Amino acid sequence: MEAKANGLKKEQLHPSLHGPTNPMVTPLLTDLYQFTMVYAYWRAAKNHERAVFDLFFRKNPFGGEYTVFAGLEECIRFIANFKLTEEDISFVRSSLPSNCEVVQLLETPFVNLVNYASLVATNAARHRFVAGKSKILLEFGLRRAQGPDGGISASKYCYMGGFDATSNVAAGRMFGIPLRGTHSHAFVSSFMSPDEIVDKSIRSSDGSTICEDFVSLVQTWLRKIQCMRGIFGETNQSELAAFTSYALAFPTNFLALVDTYDVMKSGIPNFCAVALALSDLGYKAVGIRLDSGDLAYLSGETRRFFCAIEKKFGVPGFGKMAITASNDLCEETIDALNKQGHEVDAFGIGTYLVTCQAQAALGCVFKLVEINNQPRIKLSEDVSKVSIPCKKRCYRLYGREGYPLVDIMTGENEPPPKEAERILCRHPFIESKRAYVVPQHVEELLKCYWAGGSGKAREELQPLQEIKDRCLQQLDQMRPDHMRRLNPTPYKVSVTAKLYDFIHFLWLNEAPVGELQ
Amino acid sequence: MEAKANGLKKEQLHPSLHGPTNPMVTPLLTDLYQFTMVYAYWRAAKNHERAVFDLFFRKNPFGGEYTVFAGLEECIRFIANFKLTEEDISFVRSSLPSNCEVVQLLETPFVNLVNYASLVATNAARHRFVAGKSKILLEFGLRRAQGPDGGISASKYCYMGGFDATSNVAAGRMFGIPLRGTHSHAFVSSFMSPDEIVDKSIRSSDGSTICEDFVSLVQTWLRKIQCMRGIFGETNQSELAAFTSYALAFPTNFLALVDTYDVMKSGIPNFCAVALALSDLGYKAVGIRLDSGDLAYLSGETRRFFCAIEKKFGVPGFGKMAITASNDLCEETIDALNKQGHEVDAFGIGTYLVTCQAQAALGCVFKLVEINNQPRIKLSEDVSKVSIPCKKRCYRLYGREGYPLVDIMTGENEPPPKEAERILCRHPFIESKRAYVVPQHVEELLKCYWAGGSGKAREELQPLQEIKDRCLQQLDQMRPDHMRRLNPTPYKVSVTAKLYDFIHFLWLNEAPVGELQ
Repeated sequence: MEAKANGLKKEQLHPSLHGPTNPMVTPLLTDLYQFTMVYAYWRAAKNHERAVFDLFFRKNPFGGEYTVFAGLEECIRFIANFKLTEEDISFVRSSLPSNCEVVQLLETPFVNLVNYASLVATNAARHRFVAGKSKILLEFGLRRAQGPDGGISASKYCYMGGFDATSNVAAGRMFGIPLRGTHSHAFVSSFMSPDEIVDKSIRSSDGSTICEDFVSLVQTWLRKIQCMRGIFGETNQSELAAFTSYALAFPTNFLALVDTYDVMKSGIPNFCAVALALSDLGYKAVGIRLDSGDLAYLSGETRRFFCAIEKKFGVPGFGKMAITASNDLCEETIDALNKQGHEVDAFGIGTYLVTCQAQAALGCVFKLVEINNQPRIKLSEDVSKVSIPCKKRCYRLYGREGYPLVDIMTGENEPPPKEAERILCRHPFIESKRAYVVPQHVEELLKCYWAGGSGKAREELQPLQEIKDRCLQQLDQMRPDHMRRLNPTPYKVSVTAKLYDFIHFLWLNEAPVGELQ
Repeated sequence: MEAKANGLKKEQLHPSLHGPTNPMVTPLLTDLYQFTMVYAYWRAAKNHERAVFDLFFRKNPFGGEYTVFAGLEECIRFIANFKLTEEDISFVRSSLPSNCEVVQLLETPFVNLVNYASLVATNAARHRFVAGKSKILLEFGLRRAQGPDGGISASKYCYMGGFDATSNVAAGRMFGIPLRGTHSHAFVSSFMSPDEIVDKSIRSSDGSTICEDFVSLVQTWLRKIQCMRGIFGETNQSELAAFTSYALAFPTNFLALVDTYDVMKSGIPNFCAVALALSDLGYKAVGIRLDSGDLAYLSGETRRFFCAIEKKFGVPGFGKMAITASNDLCEETIDALNKQGHEVDAFGIGTYLVTCQAQAALGCVFKLVEINNQPRIKLSEDVSKVSIPCKKRCYRLYGREGYPLVDIMTGENEPPPKEAERILCRHPFIESKRAYVVPQHVEELLKCYWAGGSGKAREELQPLQEIKDRCLQQLDQMRPDHMRRLNPTPYKVSVTAKLYDFIHFLWLNEAPVGELQ
């Protein structure tokens, strides 16, 4: 990503570049020191210098070897609409010791917009990887997200990373993400008994007949089910009333939460009674949701029960009814369910997904690498925090089997790697780590999305669905050992020999030589 | 918190009740199932029933025994401004299988607004507890927060929980929180050498004289410092240039980040040279910030160096210059620093504080406890998820030494606990856990902040500073063993004997009896 540190010109606006999704993303959403530095730059007459910053992270999250980059569009919207109001300026002025001319400030907003977006998209991709392609993944995180737009961003970026739908209505409207949802425990416990239901009539699915007393039809089915199992325990009547009411409201879309009282003794028989009554009228129920208990065991028992009903009453497809599971699911619990065996078709995932409990932050940083064509390096007591100087290009090198082998950074003016031509790839800091690569295919990774008034060609931002498709396609083409959950093979990011030499020349030049006494 | 599930009337607006801080908090910021349930309630003619919900959590976060409740004002602003636009309604209509009348929906937004707010306020309180009252705590989390308003909320609620200031300019403006910040590594590495500095003049602090060449004055001091230490290693010149420039821009507020190249060999001598030059002109430098390395060791060495300068050059107060530390700090690292001994005066805390890495979500839920004066209970396969039925009152009982002893919930119409009168406090679920308490003082905890058109008296929302003061005062009065970081003594929340009996009567009534075959 390239930007002039000071004096970035407002580019001709692409019509799609509205302001940031969250109206709170303004130039003031930044650290105070960005303003103090801008003032000091201006005092030092550096405000017309041309600077290059790298936005990067040092370590993939979740112990993995990949990260889904996300948040670009919000960054571009932020630059495209960058404007300080008179009130902004007077507030900043009042917070600084003296007057200052305010120019643009990108670091904090960019890093804020990219960090969580990439982290949660990566987390979603990891959940997709462990659940497998055949399962439905639903994002249910809004209520536990870190604030309102933690929720909205999570819905967007989980979809990008491979989820199928969200429960978040605002995100559905903003981004066109499919919505999913049914009812809660409170809905179930708000009913007392089926006697409460006043309007008991329902038209059959083909519109030809009206069933005047759906409540009785459900009761009839419930007795048949109880006989079939040879048990006489009562199911919970408030639950039965809630399911019946819900089916009357949504006969084409009946999905019931079955664990308010007792899954196998009450929720499942009650659900089946309502589903069979709907079936009499030509409707097909959707299925059930489990939100507590042993999901492997309960989903298996439920599947067996559904199959027994299909067989006993001759209702085709009843055994295949969808079983959705929720309740504090995460990568590990899905992995454990897979190992135990389960009958879950869809996972509703909330807290651990959207808050990224396994690692709650990605360490994206924004570092100066060049100013007025002079390369800059940031040293540190901690070697892993040394930055890679110069304006760079970046390429992905593919091998014979079609997998990416390694990424390589070059200086801006170096010739790009060529197909079928041998190139030395070096670890940027460890001298002994290097490899020759003969790429079968070379893909340039760094592209220009904001030309900053330079007149350069610019890539168009893609719609969410295309970004999602590209993300899934890219994850698919990785060599499987880079993708596995535990101890994945490191995917390497290297530099050319020329860039390696330059980094180390600059490093030795800037670091003071110690004196031992 | 009390609300009618359906048909809550718009209350006369208090003038301070603007819309939610984040304009994205609208009635659509909710789970789809809230709308499907509302439709089903309406179909079942339940939309005029009066419901009571409890908003609560089951477990204090971070292994502690306390939680700072936060987010109330945003909930009230949300209700006070609840309105679905025509577009909202048509979007919801298009997402549901059939038309529906839309009424208000509080669960998801309330839980979203309270969960993160309370979590991060509690996290801040824990950081204050471990750092001690004398230290300055600075919230630096914006760039790593989970999205833009993750950052803004974090700044607000960390201040509430005991922090002194934030780096987040937007939060400073919105909430009046003190702002703090200096400069970054990029600022340091953007300079090449002191020769670049064009305007070298600076007026003395009393305005009486002008120093025409501050750069030379700094160089003179640097040589004196080098002689004093008897070493001849060069300090980094780009760093020296950056510090000198920053001091020229902010002579009254000079605070330098000293670890870009090497703290003790370059950053500290460079800082001292600039600070001593400022001192010649009557200015007092603020101090330094360390952002990497061994903070215990480096802060100690720095303090020794400052004291040596004070002694050698007779600059009073130089030894007491502020040392700020940052770099992935958290409760544990501050605790470890305390144990090793350190000389840090102020902590800048970011990632772990605002993302609550130690526990990334609080499990607040919103459960139906009464409808049309009928108590409702939610059972679960998991006993700890059983809800406590009825509209309740809640009291804190204080003991002879002034500490809170226990909280107790009563049914709405039970007589309140009285001072000096013995009352039996029972664990809500475990029969054998109970205790008699004779409170010296009784405080009612549950207050009405939104009367929902009932005409009842309502508490006024307090300004942030008063909430913060109350929070610190309340934490201060807790018995120390409830507050300690490791294995704190549980603080108990109990029910009256009457409520206990009622819960268990209802529970047995609703739970189906098993059949073993």
